[in-house]
Amino acid sequence: FRFTVLTFVIAVGEVLTATSGSCHATVPNMLNVHLVPHTHDDVGWLKTVDQYFYGGRNDIQHAGVQYILDSVVGQLLQNPERRFIYVETAFFYRWWKNQPPSMQKAVRQLVDQGRLEFVNGGWCMSDEATTHYSAVIDQMTLGLRFLNDTFGPCGRPRVAWHIDPFGHAREHASMFAQMGYDGFFFGRLDYQDRTNRIRTLEQELLWRASESLEPPYADLFTGILPNGYNPPKGFCWDQSCDDAPIMDDPDLEDYNVDDVVQRFAAAANSQAMAYKTKHIIMTMGSDFQYENANLWYKNLDKLIRYVNTRQANGSQINVLYSTPSCYLQELHRANLTWTLKTDDFFPYADDAHNFWTGYFTSRPALKRYERVSNGRLQTCNQLEVLGGPSSRKGPFGAGDSETLREAMAVAQHHDAVSGTEKQHVANDYARRLANGWQHCQVVVSNSLAALSGSSAGRIYCDNLNVSACPLTEASKKFSVNVYNSLARPVVWPVRLPVNASAYTVLDATGTPVDSTQQVRKDRGYAVNELVFQAQAPPLGYSTYSVSVLQNGPPSASVKSGPPAAIQNKVRSTLSVCLRYNASDGKSSISDQASGAYIFRPNSSSPFIISCTAETESIQLQEVRQQFGPWVSQVIRLHSNSKALEMEWTVGPVPIADGLGKEVITRLDSSIASSGVFYTDSNGREVLRRKKDFRPTWDLRQTEPVAGNYYPINSRAYIKDDKDQLTVVTDRSQGGSSIHDGSLEIMLHRRLLHDDWRGVGEPLNEMSGVFPLGLVVRGRLLLSLTPPALAADAHRPLAQENVLQPLLSFTEGGPPPGSLLEFSGLQAALPPAVHLLTLSQWGQDSLLIRLEHQFQTKESKEHSVPFTVNLQKLFSTLKVVGVSELNLSANQWIDEMKRLDWRPKMGM
Amino acid sequence: FRFTVLTFVIAVGEVLTATSGSCHATVPNMLNVHLVPHTHDDVGWLKTVDQYFYGGRNDIQHAGVQYILDSVVGQLLQNPERRFIYVETAFFYRWWKNQPPSMQKAVRQLVDQGRLEFVNGGWCMSDEATTHYSAVIDQMTLGLRFLNDTFGPCGRPRVAWHIDPFGHAREHASMFAQMGYDGFFFGRLDYQDRTNRIRTLEQELLWRASESLEPPYADLFTGILPNGYNPPKGFCWDQSCDDAPIMDDPDLEDYNVDDVVQRFAAAANSQAMAYKTKHIIMTMGSDFQYENANLWYKNLDKLIRYVNTRQANGSQINVLYSTPSCYLQELHRANLTWTLKTDDFFPYADDAHNFWTGYFTSRPALKRYERVSNGRLQTCNQLEVLGGPSSRKGPFGAGDSETLREAMAVAQHHDAVSGTEKQHVANDYARRLANGWQHCQVVVSNSLAALSGSSAGRIYCDNLNVSACPLTEASKKFSVNVYNSLARPVVWPVRLPVNASAYTVLDATGTPVDSTQQVRKDRGYAVNELVFQAQAPPLGYSTYSVSVLQNGPPSASVKSGPPAAIQNKVRSTLSVCLRYNASDGKSSISDQASGAYIFRPNSSSPFIISCTAETESIQLQEVRQQFGPWVSQVIRLHSNSKALEMEWTVGPVPIADGLGKEVITRLDSSIASSGVFYTDSNGREVLRRKKDFRPTWDLRQTEPVAGNYYPINSRAYIKDDKDQLTVVTDRSQGGSSIHDGSLEIMLHRRLLHDDWRGVGEPLNEMSGVFPLGLVVRGRLLLSLTPPALAADAHRPLAQENVLQPLLSFTEGGPPPGSLLEFSGLQAALPPAVHLLTLSQWGQDSLLIRLEHQFQTKESKEHSVPFTVNLQKLFSTLKVVGVSELNLSANQWIDEMKRLDWRPKMGM
Repeated sequence: FRFTVLTFVIAVGEVLTATSGSCHATVPNMLNVHLVPHTHDDVGWLKTVDQYFYGGRNDIQHAGVQYILDSVVGQLLQNPERRFIYVETAFFYRWWKNQPPSMQKAVRQLVDQGRLEFVNGGWCMSDEATTHYSAVIDQMTLGLRFLNDTFGPCGRPRVAWHIDPFGHAREHASMFAQMGYDGFFFGRLDYQDRTNRIRTLEQELLWRASESLEPPYADLFTGILPNGYNPPKGFCWDQSCDDAPIMDDPDLEDYNVDDVVQRFAAAANSQAMAYKTKHIIMTMGSDFQYENANLWYKNLDKLIRYVNTRQANGSQINVLYSTPSCYLQELHRANLTWTLKTDDFFPYADDAHNFWTGYFTSRPALKRYERVSNGRLQTCNQLEVLGGPSSRKGPFGAGDSETLREAMAVAQHHDAVSGTEKQHVANDYARRLANGWQHCQVVVSNSLAALSGSSAGRIYCDNLNVSACPLTEASKKFSVNVYNSLARPVVWPVRLPVNASAYTVLDATGTPVDSTQQVRKDRGYAVNELVFQAQAPPLGYSTYSVSVLQNGPPSASVKSGPPAAIQNKVRSTLSVCLRYNASDGKSSISDQASGAYIFRPNSSSPFIISCTAETESIQLQEVRQQFGPWVSQVIRLHSNSKALEMEWTVGPVPIADGLGKEVITRLDSSIASSGVFYTDSNGREVLRRKKDFRPTWDLRQTEPVAGNYYPINSRAYIKDDKDQLTVVTDRSQGGSSIHDGSLEIMLHRRLLHDDWRGVGEPLNEMSGVFPLGLVVRGRLLLSLTPPALAADAHRPLAQENVLQPLLSFTEGGPPPGSLLEFSGLQAALPPAVHLLTLSQWGQDSLLIRLEHQFQTKESKEHSVPFTVNLQKLFSTLKVVGVSELNLSANQWIDEMKRLDWRPKMGM
Repeated sequence: FRFTVLTFVIAVGEVLTATSGSCHATVPNMLNVHLVPHTHDDVGWLKTVDQYFYGGRNDIQHAGVQYILDSVVGQLLQNPERRFIYVETAFFYRWWKNQPPSMQKAVRQLVDQGRLEFVNGGWCMSDEATTHYSAVIDQMTLGLRFLNDTFGPCGRPRVAWHIDPFGHAREHASMFAQMGYDGFFFGRLDYQDRTNRIRTLEQELLWRASESLEPPYADLFTGILPNGYNPPKGFCWDQSCDDAPIMDDPDLEDYNVDDVVQRFAAAANSQAMAYKTKHIIMTMGSDFQYENANLWYKNLDKLIRYVNTRQANGSQINVLYSTPSCYLQELHRANLTWTLKTDDFFPYADDAHNFWTGYFTSRPALKRYERVSNGRLQTCNQLEVLGGPSSRKGPFGAGDSETLREAMAVAQHHDAVSGTEKQHVANDYARRLANGWQHCQVVVSNSLAALSGSSAGRIYCDNLNVSACPLTEASKKFSVNVYNSLARPVVWPVRLPVNASAYTVLDATGTPVDSTQQVRKDRGYAVNELVFQAQAPPLGYSTYSVSVLQNGPPSASVKSGPPAAIQNKVRSTLSVCLRYNASDGKSSISDQASGAYIFRPNSSSPFIISCTAETESIQLQEVRQQFGPWVSQVIRLHSNSKALEMEWTVGPVPIADGLGKEVITRLDSSIASSGVFYTDSNGREVLRRKKDFRPTWDLRQTEPVAGNYYPINSRAYIKDDKDQLTVVTDRSQGGSSIHDGSLEIMLHRRLLHDDWRGVGEPLNEMSGVFPLGLVVRGRLLLSLTPPALAADAHRPLAQENVLQPLLSFTEGGPPPGSLLEFSGLQAALPPAVHLLTLSQWGQDSLLIRLEHQFQTKESKEHSVPFTVNLQKLFSTLKVVGVSELNLSANQWIDEMKRLDWRPKMGM
């Protein structure tokens, strides 16, 4: 198969039959105004997801989702004409499980009758810039599966609905297409882009979201909503709004029906000028609205009645309760052709100096933690399957993968991994991930016990990122289990904090492995760092034994020379860290400050943090550089890797000068990149970027740096005919190529002003209890290859980075008789094929996703179809039946019938 | 009969049988906490009554009563345990008439089952300081009648509920007792009084509200609510509050059930310390709350469940949904004795420098307009009866009395006639009264046409108060109908703006009447003012013919000398106007400024506005004084009156010095008043006041002027053994006696600061479109008599002032054959008996109220029982049956069984 993800379950389920919701009739030749009552419920932002659900901390923001759903359902039951859509299954699920059967029955009926329609339907409305496709697919699956299980086909969303995210990724559109959505609506796009599209009537278009997939497989009809996701001015009847209600008692002083009808007609006619058909959509709702749905519906009922009554007097406006899918159905019936779009909607600017490119990097530690947690969840899922039923309840107690799955799903929200939430909410997301991992550790321990035959206590050193592990620091003899969740073998540098000066490391066969002990002054409390290259089989583990060597260190063996090739092309400035000083909002051009969302340097040239690095070469494989007190870097070349590792440590960023700072690393090379660079979309397909340029309109560039920033999920590169310099990141970051031959990546941000986009806090992360700025560490992997071979390097590099091996430790040597090495696969999959998902689905069924991970044409060897024999895939599981599903696993692949849309000719 | 009001309807109605609402069981020996869900819905304040009903102008204040009732009813229907009380029938009535029959049926059932209970139940919750008993009885009757007609006995409120008014009048308590209420609850009282009562457990007491009525006829059990009318701190679950909801999912981070239960127990136990029984009441609601009742009920349901669950673990707290009548029933069952109170709850101070005594005078023009409108409504009611069916639909079209009745009822609200509403709302009240009067004019014209036999066009010169009447100013010959709504003859000085220099005035018999033409420079555009004394029979009219006399003016005839007796005792300073400068909130003692509610002069001595009055004696009957540019006064002695009239004109009050001003008139006399003075309560019984003293606690006086102010509805006096100086006012005003022998009355206020009690505006009334301060005119009637004869003078004077004759005009002479004089009574009633109400009730029934208007012992001649023969009352109506009702006409008098309460012995 080609560059795509295939999703399967094993075991045959009942046949799903889709029925369409009951849409109200429209009137031909009139302007039909589709009123879509909706609420936008952030799965955490200013408050935590719990607080939003219950309506706690209403002093921060008045919002309580439990009441919204109570109220909307009550109002829908009162009048069958009314409609509502609901989006965020994370909330709906919680509400549902608290309802008595009578209410559940009533809601099922509302769904069956199309009065309550789910749109989008994932666990959350994911961020598009900073999420990894793997986690997005998981969170969509989690939400959609709940809807499928609870409501059947009538609960399946037909429409994707990303009304709030701050820019839109092509890979998201591709995924939505593969999930079977008929169309996609969003609210935010670049202000110049919008102006242009209003003029050309291109606010509704056909998005061809993949270069690799045959049309229309990744085609997605896309609509830009008229007022973001708000109602037209003057027609907000929520309790949070102050617009005049319809006062229709003629005896009263404030009777306003004529005025309301007239203003509504004006709004509708004005909106109709910017769209192609005789149908327009109005989003009647906004953030956390409909907590008291009666206010909305009572006035909407009246609006519909009074506006349509005027038809008897010649009015040409017909207004109706509708839903996005009903609106979409009318657009489809219009049988028009639609402009084709093949790039994406990044970056998003709401005005000339207001580029939402800061959040590509905001909260780098949270972004990393989310990425690490994704790997842990995949490991947990896999081991839950491989270890069998005792994984969930075994010698280490009861564990589950759901807690981490839900925590990861919540973390995909567009104010979660994006870094645009309040600090206390960021803490809550991290706490949830940590808690989820606690639940998963039990599964992992149980599973490894089942697989290895040993129930010896197992320790997870979760603080290895700061070089802390009490067991390895104290123990004279311990064993290390290295679990590899990739479908091919991995080699991984294990780095452990230790206090003895020499160790012996044996592999699973008892063969000694080369290791080094390095003195580390810069991290943790341990004296030394023990380093060795571990290998682990596909979807399996290998066990290493480590013991203190009494007779002092052996001589280190050096396997390879310095990274000469890279040093040559990527010049000495490679390792220079720079920073922008953030705008503080006091400039005469614009009062926009840099903040959680927005990046706005106060000068287009970055400042060098330090010109002279204090450089220390530990061994030939490692160079350490200290650029002043708060920026340092370690450069490593691993013996078996073609990539150079740059491990950066930044912080606490000083703010004594009263200026916020946005720290970048810049890689300067001699590559003739001609203003062109490449960034990936959600960690998957790569898009071409050009400085000061947008593919679909004539850009007026107003921010020479921030206006050229793009999200980097897992990689970015520049190239010329001969060379390609690729950087693989360990989390989402913002980056650009401001100068030819140069790639810059923003590592960390510490800001002193809010940027007035709602979060209401400066992004000023602290470390621990002291008011010290947060220190963040990460690594970039650099690879320099001929362009034709680049993907062969960066595709596996990136997957290894996402799915890092899980290390677990037991005191003492491996228990006698235990199985020290295990692989769940009969054989490694071909390099082009990635095992994206392996998790328990039903009691006797598994969900697996196989991904072809090479984009079209990027690799001569791998960008070709492959065949995988599912029957012969697993070493311990017997496959008795396989059924293919859509990407989100809520529809059989052969029942996925999407609306067909025609592109405009000549595009 | 004695000092009381008797209420009758003619025609026998069905027998009403009262049933008691179903109260939840309580638990003996536990502390029973009665949770009373309620909303407090001002019938106008920051927004107009229409805006409050619909939820318009939510930018001013979020409040929409239509939604409150929608929501509460929906929530009550969901769970039969829940309870709600509703208070303001002005709102409930509007909501009810918009409901479909199915909803009306459901609500009837809620009422029948005691799940929705009406309390108070008048059209509004009236102000107690500035309302006249006549209008209060009317507004209560209007609301209670709707409830009776709609819901029968289960809709009859058992409890009076004045949770917000700013001080409490004894006459209100007396009226409530006579209306059959079992008890009365309120929220605001003097902070010292409250502290004292908390200490002595006297927050629940027995109020003996009349000196004239035999106990327990005017006894009213009175409870002071624990938190004003709000829930205890931390337990407000309205959408307008931020308190934490009950978060009872143990899986969530914010689980707080234990915390909530513990805090609630602490609040309940603390409250129980301040009350006598094992029952306490908690008001769970506040201003315009329950718009989204689900928030409240969902959490209250949980609170009740979780608190009562702890009883299994030994908790002694039992919490239940309840209502004021259920709570009252438990207090009654406690069978205790209660402290007796015989004075009232004025003035109200919420802290040492924060006396709510400014509103006694705030908006003097509105206060006067309300008083005038009351007279017009009574006239309209009477003429609707006397003129028969053609009154409502006759030669002048269709008219009605309901519009003015509802406007008057709304105007009784504690932010209406009180003057504590925003300016735009004050304008709305005035507009409603004017509109109501337009509807009544048609009734009056039709009725007078029927009674007189002439349909000649009839003009009402509504601007006579500013000496403007186009008809009299232009006409050479016109007739004047003087309608008298009193049950005894009246003599009234008619003053008309005219432009000729001499007129002949003939009475109904064609006999010439003495008249004078005075040149008026100070008012209107007319050159002259024509003055004559008109007489009119009881409950009837007389017609005067006026025509220009071509041969110049006759010599004026002087009937009496100057008011020597008054001039003697009330010394030359009688006519001096003074002012206080208002505190601006910048004092070091307190930051309280004078405002709509609060009176706080910045010095205890008033400033003299002008020491030298420019005095002009027009005739012996009239002296005009000009005290500078913005204060003037006319002193008149009418030939047939024993009272001196002081007509004051104040404004625009200058504010160029940056100071607000509160203008008083002070009457200084040689009366040895010894710190004692007297003020009436709601225009009826008179209470003794003593400077710097409160009857029920040791006062710590902190505001020597404002802390001694009391409301004057219609009269105040000082006296010694020989003399009594009585002032009868034409509207509600504040006043005091700060010095012995002196009475001061506040006439007008113009302020530059808000006083932070919610209205959010300075009380700075403007005149017309220019930013000129409002000019206000009024009159005080002074009578000086021996104390024993004072009531004989001031009782009729006050009634004449309340029910002034209505003048109407027709161009030309009286039509030939028309009836020029009419009386609806067979004979005048005795002076002690006032016809308080005569209005249409059913199609063939009338409502009449006969009032004995002399307080016990105040008049040797009149403070005695009288007999009235109802059969022989009317001249044109045949009485075929009479039934007596309670004061509010919602219960037959012989079925009025009130709870009996025992006073504490020795009181």
